[in-house]
Amino acid sequence: MSNSEQKVTRIVKLEKKVLSKNDEIALRVRNYLNERKIAAINIISSPGSGKTTLLEKTLSKLQDELSISIMVGDQKTDNDARRLSKFKSEVYQINTHNSCHLNAEQVEKNLEKIIRKQTDLFIIENIGNLVCPSSFDLGEDLKVALLSCTEGEDKPIKYPSLFFRAKCVLITKSDLIPHLDWDEQKCREYIKRINNTCQIIKISSKNNEGMDEWYSFLRSILKK
Amino acid sequence: MSNSEQKVTRIVKLEKKVLSKNDEIALRVRNYLNERKIAAINIISSPGSGKTTLLEKTLSKLQDELSISIMVGDQKTDNDARRLSKFKSEVYQINTHNSCHLNAEQVEKNLEKIIRKQTDLFIIENIGNLVCPSSFDLGEDLKVALLSCTEGEDKPIKYPSLFFRAKCVLITKSDLIPHLDWDEQKCREYIKRINNTCQIIKISSKNNEGMDEWYSFLRSILKK
Repeated sequence: MSNSEQKVTRIVKLEKKVLSKNDEIALRVRNYLNERKIAAINIISSPGSGKTTLLEKTLSKLQDELSISIMVGDQKTDNDARRLSKFKSEVYQINTHNSCHLNAEQVEKNLEKIIRKQTDLFIIENIGNLVCPSSFDLGEDLKVALLSCTEGEDKPIKYPSLFFRAKCVLITKSDLIPHLDWDEQKCREYIKRINNTCQIIKISSKNNEGMDEWYSFLRSILKK
Repeated sequence: MSNSEQKVTRIVKLEKKVLSKNDEIALRVRNYLNERKIAAINIISSPGSGKTTLLEKTLSKLQDELSISIMVGDQKTDNDARRLSKFKSEVYQINTHNSCHLNAEQVEKNLEKIIRKQTDLFIIENIGNLVCPSSFDLGEDLKVALLSCTEGEDKPIKYPSLFFRAKCVLITKSDLIPHLDWDEQKCREYIKRINNTCQIIKISSKNNEGMDEWYSFLRSILKK
């Protein structure tokens, strides 16, 4: 029936429009940050993989060395922003309510609330979701994936879209490894199968394993 | 501008149409299962919260007592189906590729591959995602949420949509609690704040804590 065919055609057009609108805004965000020589990362993982704890440790270590601005996304609550507000950084919480990812418009709209002339590093802590956020460019320089060893070895091959795009994969909660049936070699092999060039760092916010390598990674991407 | 206003109106109409199409199909699935007196649950959690391990334990315990059919969703790989295929159950793997949730159409299309005359219980293991799958009715009787204690206490209030809809919340990996800074009372309080009527069961697939209560829950929802 020609009627229903027309409807399908219309849906495709709208989807294209939404995607390119996000990309257009992401480009503006990227230009805005580049002009100011601000490095930007988009941190993505499952809920509870340790994103906010990582940021607490990172701010505690680097807050006197770098000027860091942070945008945190969650469906509800400002728990994460409150946890990070005790440091010197500028922090802004976005609540997405029913949406499962941050988009570039939310980032652009709130940039000036937290970006300062002296800002060196802009960190976006995305919504806890291993699937959807990886498809949305937010204007960052690179994506960082967190994968907790408690999640098992095979998540990179089951949910490859994030791992394919990440420049750095942090294997978190390494202090728990002695209590798990978790095969590190297999996990690394799965990550490499999806992305052979990313940097993999095994970290623990509890016993500080790998944290110096993480701080070095952050220093290596700075633009000032 | 009236042009852009018209475009917005059109988007809303299309979204409504997609949702009601899923609900229509979910209703057909529900009727199909009800006519056959098959109980159906939709298991949802973050990636790596222990859904497949729970099912391995459940099948190992109940496969001689109940006829169980399982549909498992992942973006890629048939790892989960392969893990479950060593039991007597009928298992079918759906790969959603770029989609972040199962929908009712995928369930309906594949029902007859795994539902048998004697089936007592139909289990859907959804994609590992705490956000999106909870909005899609698949024709199940009830949703079961898994929340690993390694994910922290506050996920129910940060991602309430699933916990609001779940009839049963399983707190998983309880054997790891001694190694975590995890406040059980706070976690239970957060779940209750979102949903005061759900059953909460703390389980470990490793040391079997709570597993008998879980099996009793499953027996209590059977229809034959």
